[in-house]
Amino acid sequence: MNPHPLAQLSESETNTARDVVVASHPNTVIDFREIFLLEPPKAQLREFLALEHSGRLSPTTPRPPRLAICQYDIIGADRIPSFNESIVEIPSRKVTSHRVVGKQHHASLTLSEFDTLVERCFASPLFQKALSEFTLPEGFEVIIEPWPYGGLDHTDENRRYFQGLCFAQDKRKNNPDANFYSYPLPLIPVMDAHTQEIIRVDRPATGGKGEGLFDQTFKRDIIGHCKASDYVPELLPEGTRKDLKPLNIVQPEGPSFRVTNESLVEWQKWSFRVGFNPREGATIHDVWYDGRSIMHRLSVSEMTVPYADPRPPFHRKQAFDFGDGGGGNMANNLSIGCDCLGVIKYFDAIMTGPDGTAQKLPNAICLHEQDNGIAWKHSNWRTGRAVVTRHRELVVQFIITLANYEYIFAYKFDQSGGMTVEARATGILNVVNIDAGKTSDYGNVVSGGVLAQNHQHIFCLRMDPAVDGPNNSVVIEESHRQPMNAATNPNGNFYKVTNQTVERASWLDAAPELNRVVKIINPHKTNPISGHNVAYKFTPLATQLLLADPDSVQARRAQFAQHHVWVTKHRDGELYAGGRYTLQSQQEVEGVSDAVKRGDSVVDTDVVVWNSFGITHNPRVEDWPVMPVETFQVMIRPSDFFTANPSLDVPSNQNGASRVVQSECCRNAQL
Amino acid sequence: MNPHPLAQLSESETNTARDVVVASHPNTVIDFREIFLLEPPKAQLREFLALEHSGRLSPTTPRPPRLAICQYDIIGADRIPSFNESIVEIPSRKVTSHRVVGKQHHASLTLSEFDTLVERCFASPLFQKALSEFTLPEGFEVIIEPWPYGGLDHTDENRRYFQGLCFAQDKRKNNPDANFYSYPLPLIPVMDAHTQEIIRVDRPATGGKGEGLFDQTFKRDIIGHCKASDYVPELLPEGTRKDLKPLNIVQPEGPSFRVTNESLVEWQKWSFRVGFNPREGATIHDVWYDGRSIMHRLSVSEMTVPYADPRPPFHRKQAFDFGDGGGGNMANNLSIGCDCLGVIKYFDAIMTGPDGTAQKLPNAICLHEQDNGIAWKHSNWRTGRAVVTRHRELVVQFIITLANYEYIFAYKFDQSGGMTVEARATGILNVVNIDAGKTSDYGNVVSGGVLAQNHQHIFCLRMDPAVDGPNNSVVIEESHRQPMNAATNPNGNFYKVTNQTVERASWLDAAPELNRVVKIINPHKTNPISGHNVAYKFTPLATQLLLADPDSVQARRAQFAQHHVWVTKHRDGELYAGGRYTLQSQQEVEGVSDAVKRGDSVVDTDVVVWNSFGITHNPRVEDWPVMPVETFQVMIRPSDFFTANPSLDVPSNQNGASRVVQSECCRNAQL
Repeated sequence: MNPHPLAQLSESETNTARDVVVASHPNTVIDFREIFLLEPPKAQLREFLALEHSGRLSPTTPRPPRLAICQYDIIGADRIPSFNESIVEIPSRKVTSHRVVGKQHHASLTLSEFDTLVERCFASPLFQKALSEFTLPEGFEVIIEPWPYGGLDHTDENRRYFQGLCFAQDKRKNNPDANFYSYPLPLIPVMDAHTQEIIRVDRPATGGKGEGLFDQTFKRDIIGHCKASDYVPELLPEGTRKDLKPLNIVQPEGPSFRVTNESLVEWQKWSFRVGFNPREGATIHDVWYDGRSIMHRLSVSEMTVPYADPRPPFHRKQAFDFGDGGGGNMANNLSIGCDCLGVIKYFDAIMTGPDGTAQKLPNAICLHEQDNGIAWKHSNWRTGRAVVTRHRELVVQFIITLANYEYIFAYKFDQSGGMTVEARATGILNVVNIDAGKTSDYGNVVSGGVLAQNHQHIFCLRMDPAVDGPNNSVVIEESHRQPMNAATNPNGNFYKVTNQTVERASWLDAAPELNRVVKIINPHKTNPISGHNVAYKFTPLATQLLLADPDSVQARRAQFAQHHVWVTKHRDGELYAGGRYTLQSQQEVEGVSDAVKRGDSVVDTDVVVWNSFGITHNPRVEDWPVMPVETFQVMIRPSDFFTANPSLDVPSNQNGASRVVQSECCRNAQL
Repeated sequence: MNPHPLAQLSESETNTARDVVVASHPNTVIDFREIFLLEPPKAQLREFLALEHSGRLSPTTPRPPRLAICQYDIIGADRIPSFNESIVEIPSRKVTSHRVVGKQHHASLTLSEFDTLVERCFASPLFQKALSEFTLPEGFEVIIEPWPYGGLDHTDENRRYFQGLCFAQDKRKNNPDANFYSYPLPLIPVMDAHTQEIIRVDRPATGGKGEGLFDQTFKRDIIGHCKASDYVPELLPEGTRKDLKPLNIVQPEGPSFRVTNESLVEWQKWSFRVGFNPREGATIHDVWYDGRSIMHRLSVSEMTVPYADPRPPFHRKQAFDFGDGGGGNMANNLSIGCDCLGVIKYFDAIMTGPDGTAQKLPNAICLHEQDNGIAWKHSNWRTGRAVVTRHRELVVQFIITLANYEYIFAYKFDQSGGMTVEARATGILNVVNIDAGKTSDYGNVVSGGVLAQNHQHIFCLRMDPAVDGPNNSVVIEESHRQPMNAATNPNGNFYKVTNQTVERASWLDAAPELNRVVKIINPHKTNPISGHNVAYKFTPLATQLLLADPDSVQARRAQFAQHHVWVTKHRDGELYAGGRYTLQSQQEVEGVSDAVKRGDSVVDTDVVVWNSFGITHNPRVEDWPVMPVETFQVMIRPSDFFTANPSLDVPSNQNGASRVVQSECCRNAQL
């Protein structure tokens, strides 16, 4: 029997796919990038899931064939790799489709390319010559932080490039985790990945206010004004604080969730499946509540981080963290008692090695429950009787590291029928060298000689809803002030609530001044109490959109970041807001902005809703050397989906483990 | 020795003040409303606090005199009460000031007035006659929910009124907590509080879409189409769910906080004092972090809840929950293990009885720590070393009940130097009767015959900052797109960050499209690293402002709800955004809009910043019968106040109490 159609590829399935690809290209050198589950076509998947939910699945029911999408380079005689994608049907060991991706597109990066960049830099006379213009203090060594090249300049040939951001590390500390980011060097070597040659070393400016974009003002003693700023506890000059007492999450009877049958999670009337792939990281599938379907698929589709320093080549600092490197590829191996507390279920992920073999990433996802304060309360002032319930959440969390930054993503489910997608940004700011004593219009000096450039982080969440069935519509609700008038608003207190159905694939922006709410309704199902269509809704976060000039390369390749909400009609494989191939892209290709251009009818059909949100991050000194989390939450809530508050039956029992504070903690307390 | 100048009045101080007032009005009948601490004039308080913080306070240091503000009615021979305010100096037992408040203003309501309304309704032939037009099912009894009258109609004399919202309760259940809100009656009796007479019974319409504002369409069988919708667990038809396992917060070594010296809280480099008064509830004073001052006073100043149903008299449904009834007066007695978990310190509050004597409200405030996920993390991909710390918060929480609704307020302090003010709205929707089978443009039918009207909740937070000293300025930071141009923005990726100082007292609105941030800076102190003035900042929540027509009574009495941010110069006693006397107000009097009109210079002075935010609440069926919390968070964060992330020294130790899930919870798990 095949595994469940939504289960990620097993190690053995991955290795089979790899072998089939290798066999299909005899006498060829192949560099593998990714092998992962190609989810079945939605029509086929739906048919299977319908049988599953109706209890009509037997061991002999045919299951959709297991398919692997395999991305790899074929290294030709000229050493120039050619990017290929094959679909392998695993049980039959057949290549069902094969495609040579045009050379205009680039496969996502691999860590082995990063290793090559570092190695080639140090071997490069060009780089060594540039480096020789500086004197580093005794005991310091150069560190190269490989980066995607960003959008091509119009002078660039469309080859595959990487750039290196350079820093120095104080090796006298004998600690490989001494923070090298506090010693930035103004050198950006560029490698042609095909020839593996360092073709250029860019020399960004290090000046301050009033100085030109290209002014070379640096001194030979390039990091003499920089200072140590470490974050690993053993390097903190004063150690860690001693007065924080433990706070434990204890679940003596175990968790309230159950994980069975290849990734099926059941908890408090919810059921869903947890997926994982190298591009999106953890994904959520087939979400039901108490026997009713809500969401077919939920994922973080893309994010982009454009930097705003106008001094070339800093305009090429623009990462697409999911498309360039892979939100799954960059996922952390999570640690108990650090990344999550309480009773935890971990999920491993299967990744791909350079030779195409399966590599297990342990603990890529954690699943746990948490208390989030009060869920609902009412006190009857007549009787003094209070009923209060706690807001318990189930959290599916994964964390990715992209060079200096980290992002913590969580899909949270609650007992009131709500789903919240949370993104936390943390990690280390991307910084560059600034001359001693200067300040900048392009960022903030966060440590001696360290300029943290202004930038944005813009995320895109992809929601493939199935609100009480497969066909949904999108309705925009707004609340409008009405002028006072004798006939309909004699006292001026009335406001009008409007509901407008989105007819064609299109975008729209957040409008908090109109209390704009996006509702995903099922036009065939009516709430028996209110008479309205059953719906789930969210209020798009009114965060600043992409600031780059619309004609800039930064903006052209990140169309998704220029509007808050996109509504499209589902197409198999259309998963990536910023386009299928973002590495070195010049524009968004096959992204959500292209999907919208089809102008499909999106009424009573298989709609997909995309939500972009983020932060304009003008760094604070407090963000250094590691940044306290900035948190975003998209709240997806039922709206006349149920016939009452779904958490009404949550017990309001007193928690017996809580304690009133001991008196010695409160010496002399008089209150 | 006097108590600390910020300690709330003790029971004995309250009783002394009461006795002094009584003695100052011989042979007079007095109805007391409030007696509470009049905080010392700020200049005097500051002088004292400066000595305290510098360690120069001795037992003989003179302390500001303890003052009580006493609000009471003097009942004249004509039975018409006259509203008086006296300031009593407690140690000397002297009335230092006395003022007869004009009859145009009304003292806040008391629960004894509510009792009178209920009693007078049942005794009123007018009310009984109105009631007789309906037939209630056997076993049902009328319940009257007293409410403030709202803004006066232009036809009303300015006397003191109360209105009653009427419901029926199913007494056959023998449960005083059976939910009567599910049986609304279209009757609104109005009482003249001076004569205690029911002067009128308003008859709101019960119709639906297409029907006129005054159409009387109700049937004699007025609640025949209504249904039970209970929330107390013993009345739930199917009981409570059984599959939620306990989640305990255990702090084996006790809390990390210390409470000493009359309400001084110390925790993780923070110190502040907790106050409490009948109007604002819990207040936060004299906030310092690691020996530096941040905030002089922080409070929830006001909130208003205007309803949008245009059918008279529903336009008079507009509560000012802090001004009308008192956020402190309506505070809950909190329960361990329900309202907060973990190790908890409770603070009691001293309230005033109708005869002026002190009445203790136990457990009015709870103080506890909580874990809020990851605080910061960085993984070095070269070494595999991850450092991750948890985000521990200290929470000062109080909860108020206003008839049907509750609000949960929390002041949260974190280890990264941040303060978050959180408001959660929960409780029971305010509802009215709607005829069977109809729907409405004015709200949502949430249960048979029950229309939950559209409304808004708009809160106002008052921040009296002291960022590194008493004199601050307010700077508005914005991020602006810049057109591409060869000289300054050759690649179009640059955006410009602007900073504009607020010169004169004024208002401004949230502008997420500009990433508008409000910074409170100390113009005399510079961050040694960035060169910028030290600051705390917040991003005003871009929530919809008051929708009522600006000429409506609803809008005129809630000016504070029409802009997000107000900047004023401090004046002693100027604490209430919606005005000092909101009950039955016709316009905002002595509110923040008046303070702004002075046009004071607010540069480098004692500024106060007010932040209004809220929700347009178009009810969902899921909000019935008790509403899952809607949560708002205003985040006040350091901005170049510190020289690095203040939570850098938080230990990154693994929490030893966490556990990997037991296998029996995950039967058949294949991942």
